[in-house]
Amino acid sequence: MTTVPQSLQEAIQHKIDNKTKPLGALGLLETVALQVGLIQNTLSPVITAPHIVVLAADHGIAATGKVNPYPQSVTAQMVLNFVNGGAAINVFCRQHGIGLTVVDAGVNIDFDPALPIVHARQGKGTADYSLGSAMSVEAAVETTKAGAAIVQRIFEGGCNTIGFGEMGIGNTSSAALIMHHYTGLPLPQCVGRGTGASDAQLQQKLAVLEAVATLHELATYELPPHGLLSRIGGFEIAMMAGAYVKAFELGMVIVVDGFIATAALLVAIHLYNGGGACALLNPRHPLLQNCIFAHTSGELGHDAMLQELGVHPLLNLGMRLGEGTGAALAIPLVQSAVHFLNGMASFETASVDHKL
Amino acid sequence: MTTVPQSLQEAIQHKIDNKTKPLGALGLLETVALQVGLIQNTLSPVITAPHIVVLAADHGIAATGKVNPYPQSVTAQMVLNFVNGGAAINVFCRQHGIGLTVVDAGVNIDFDPALPIVHARQGKGTADYSLGSAMSVEAAVETTKAGAAIVQRIFEGGCNTIGFGEMGIGNTSSAALIMHHYTGLPLPQCVGRGTGASDAQLQQKLAVLEAVATLHELATYELPPHGLLSRIGGFEIAMMAGAYVKAFELGMVIVVDGFIATAALLVAIHLYNGGGACALLNPRHPLLQNCIFAHTSGELGHDAMLQELGVHPLLNLGMRLGEGTGAALAIPLVQSAVHFLNGMASFETASVDHKL
Repeated sequence: MTTVPQSLQEAIQHKIDNKTKPLGALGLLETVALQVGLIQNTLSPVITAPHIVVLAADHGIAATGKVNPYPQSVTAQMVLNFVNGGAAINVFCRQHGIGLTVVDAGVNIDFDPALPIVHARQGKGTADYSLGSAMSVEAAVETTKAGAAIVQRIFEGGCNTIGFGEMGIGNTSSAALIMHHYTGLPLPQCVGRGTGASDAQLQQKLAVLEAVATLHELATYELPPHGLLSRIGGFEIAMMAGAYVKAFELGMVIVVDGFIATAALLVAIHLYNGGGACALLNPRHPLLQNCIFAHTSGELGHDAMLQELGVHPLLNLGMRLGEGTGAALAIPLVQSAVHFLNGMASFETASVDHKL
Repeated sequence: MTTVPQSLQEAIQHKIDNKTKPLGALGLLETVALQVGLIQNTLSPVITAPHIVVLAADHGIAATGKVNPYPQSVTAQMVLNFVNGGAAINVFCRQHGIGLTVVDAGVNIDFDPALPIVHARQGKGTADYSLGSAMSVEAAVETTKAGAAIVQRIFEGGCNTIGFGEMGIGNTSSAALIMHHYTGLPLPQCVGRGTGASDAQLQQKLAVLEAVATLHELATYELPPHGLLSRIGGFEIAMMAGAYVKAFELGMVIVVDGFIATAALLVAIHLYNGGGACALLNPRHPLLQNCIFAHTSGELGHDAMLQELGVHPLLNLGMRLGEGTGAALAIPLVQSAVHFLNGMASFETASVDHKL
């Protein structure tokens, strides 16, 4: 006797369990199929016009050379590389038919207005937060709003599945400080090598960030999210935080990339909470319902951040490139989950015998 | 000053390292790009007409019901499901444009000769190897040859990248015995739940296989590969072993699926050695040079077998379905590796500054 499912969740699980395969044999893909069905409130979800948004911005602290082995100029050069189709994220988006939008969230040069990028910056890079605030609270607010507006437009173009990438020399520092603030983990567990710091560079980066954390009282009390962004944020991280909240409000499937993208998600969780009482790192936080975690980055700190969130990414390839590359490689797996849910035969339709 | 590469390997690595990304930032994809370049002996490898071959066969021991929770009839039913496009492997191959060939390697019914499958069986399922040999040595030899012939035809059709899947109720038992024989690991570390044995079923399966291992003297001395196949093999495993060797000889990229596919690879390694002195589990075995490991299966034993081989699969999604589904999901990652190697800009062409 078949039991009648009591809820959508039970109905989706019933559909999954009746596919021609042993129970649970598709592992995490089954979890993703269930999640996407619940996000879209249907037994037959679809992934339409998947899209990656790469947000680029500069960091004042990077100009000091104290936290990063590449010069700040690389941020702008890589934006042009995105425009010309030569970066890793271009290659992977082309491979999988994923749309790509590149955004100037705050790069420290004046791009030609005719370039096919979204010009949305609130500043030409942040100020050096080892000396003072990175940006004003007003700029942080405007930047999160700009991120929301970008997602709204992409959604209106027919996209229901989105991932966010970033490019910003020095931005692992900002992400490490955010992680430290929200998780309470000591900085040495949050600060990694970024684009490839040597041992000596890593020690210097850590020392600089310890001083920054003290200056901005990051371990003293919980800051409201816009306040945190104004102290040690990056424009791309602020914009991504606003983008996450909007994507959630629009019911989109959100594919979360690596270290910086996950740090921005921590900010988004608090933005959605209105910056109020700490619902921090609650795996049942509403925003997380729409998030599929793409991969575990090779950057130190990411795995610990994922563990604090209680989530299990799809890939673990030792990648640490940013740009949304992990998300781009994970989107086909999300599509596989949806395809098996919609495309596989059931035991009944295929006339396959059940378990003894 | 740029050093002139001294070998193809150095030249490929140099090409990888000059892509617009931090050194090593694409993780395992960089390893795969190097490997595929070396397999194809070129700086610009290509993946053409990737293909999955699903080999189906029945196991006499499965008819006893002692080692498997599904009835033996499911093997043939699933072959018809493959033909009708309703199985997981169909869905994933369609998604990624992967060719699919279904082979009757020894199923215990007479399929309509008009079905779009390769009819290559040497027997209607194996005999019950808890009572005697599974097949004759001659049948094992013919079956490996049939596997080689199938690969030859697919190669001639333009395919240079191939993965092998299987369908055969009871075949985790045969694979566990092969693993036990070649790795020397005790049976409790080799025998898992297969399609979903309960605790009691698992204990019974283990007891049956302990008796089989004793009967066939699997732990006494190393058997020649056709001899091992004749004692406890399956037709699909024998055919896959022959197929691996041929794919290697043809210089193809081989994407290795899960537990049974890896056990068949152990047999293939010894077939290629001519069954002679034990070069067993040498990570530098020639055959392994062409093998990319798709995923770590959720089936107990697979991870240990991979560790014995010293290899690192691309995916770990907790899947344990067989059919080549892990290989099908990993092929896009192999393609991503090749695409970045061919499609990304270098620091020079993109005018991006190097590391400080």
